[in-house]
Amino acid sequence: MLKVVKIGGNVVDDPVKLGTFLQDFAALEGPKVLVHGGGKIASVLSKALGIEPRMIEGRRVTDAETLKVVTMVYAGYVNKHITARLQGLGTNAFGLCGADGKLIVSDRRKAAPVDYGFVGDPAVDKFGTATAELLISAGYIPVVAPITYDGKGGLLNTNADTVARTVAVALSKHCETELVYCFEKKGVLSDVRDENSVIPEIDPERYARLKAEGAVADGMIPKLDNAFGAIDAGVSRVVICGSDALLQPGYGGTTLRK
Amino acid sequence: MLKVVKIGGNVVDDPVKLGTFLQDFAALEGPKVLVHGGGKIASVLSKALGIEPRMIEGRRVTDAETLKVVTMVYAGYVNKHITARLQGLGTNAFGLCGADGKLIVSDRRKAAPVDYGFVGDPAVDKFGTATAELLISAGYIPVVAPITYDGKGGLLNTNADTVARTVAVALSKHCETELVYCFEKKGVLSDVRDENSVIPEIDPERYARLKAEGAVADGMIPKLDNAFGAIDAGVSRVVICGSDALLQPGYGGTTLRK
Repeated sequence: MLKVVKIGGNVVDDPVKLGTFLQDFAALEGPKVLVHGGGKIASVLSKALGIEPRMIEGRRVTDAETLKVVTMVYAGYVNKHITARLQGLGTNAFGLCGADGKLIVSDRRKAAPVDYGFVGDPAVDKFGTATAELLISAGYIPVVAPITYDGKGGLLNTNADTVARTVAVALSKHCETELVYCFEKKGVLSDVRDENSVIPEIDPERYARLKAEGAVADGMIPKLDNAFGAIDAGVSRVVICGSDALLQPGYGGTTLRK
Repeated sequence: MLKVVKIGGNVVDDPVKLGTFLQDFAALEGPKVLVHGGGKIASVLSKALGIEPRMIEGRRVTDAETLKVVTMVYAGYVNKHITARLQGLGTNAFGLCGADGKLIVSDRRKAAPVDYGFVGDPAVDKFGTATAELLISAGYIPVVAPITYDGKGGLLNTNADTVARTVAVALSKHCETELVYCFEKKGVLSDVRDENSVIPEIDPERYARLKAEGAVADGMIPKLDNAFGAIDAGVSRVVICGSDALLQPGYGGTTLRK
């Protein structure tokens, strides 16, 4: 079973949590891919450089200068820092972004109704399977930054959850694949105020019920919709768990199944 | 013949020159590797971030903050920008730094007599031949940033000329290899004031004579010593040429031979 693990920006920002996560990830058996988010470093850097963040409907617009910053931070600092750390833990990590070997080709998001600038949505059918399989079958651990290729000589800023899903769905055509989202909570909670109310397993029927009951928090719905979409597209299961739970049975989180 | 081409920071900084160079590089036949320098973007960024450059004997000290900046700029922005541009030119470019698949492992420079901080000298015997050959034999064009791996979970800032030489020398054990240094002059000049006084060929005997006559400019001597060192270590020939000369016969520059 190939494991595609996504680690969020909040964990990337926290040296202690990141350290624990990387140690666990290094110890995880079998073929695996790590997809990382960016964290707040990009915002801090943008601010220091005097780039005014422009938001539309709560989402950041990636202008040319911001694209430069996120490329530096995500594909440069964060990606290479994590890759070196994993190498130090005896894992043959190989950092890359979507442009490298055309691993992840995105369609630039249309400028209407809202122009988010240099932002792309990865296309599963343009995924660089040859590149991923070359690395994985030779025993490397791809470490993927959420900067993708526009198919025309340029880069695009891309949501890391979507990058992880794209990697998992594309590779599920070739081998059994599991998608693991590690974040700051322990899993999907039945009571958002109770960290220990993790729902161990959700199938589409239960998901419909939870949504109808209003038992799933608003912010969780796009994540879960996305996750069930990955399962429909071929991923064997999706797990949503804490960043310190990779070595626990079932990752101590919520498993989504067909 | 495998070509290892190094492009200097001055060219990276100049969009027109870089565009010409990348077009020529993409058109260059046969297996090839590109090693790029950093350019002034790192200094501009450091300044914007309020990092005071610390120089000892004219050389920059890489403290922890500076290492972060050069990793962002060289392995992030410059590397991914060049990789995407080359992909756009139909070249299956694959950007990486020394940590990726342990391509280039460096020994951190000793702190005495002068502590340059996080700076490393690449070790030919620790070169990631398996990683380089995997990519090259599968038809990828490695694009290498001058950030290397310290063998212990960290990164080191490294001279790009030395990175290029290390790649060429290490791969010369496996196939015939040519090392091409592209820079802002047309080659080694017999008269520094005359851009057209390129010396087409230099062997060690002629080099000794040129040095004795004072006919080689001071700044050129470490570059040439370095180049002859590469030839002694197994590289078939080293060419020093202009960044717009890659498609000219003999690169229109100076060829160094045994």
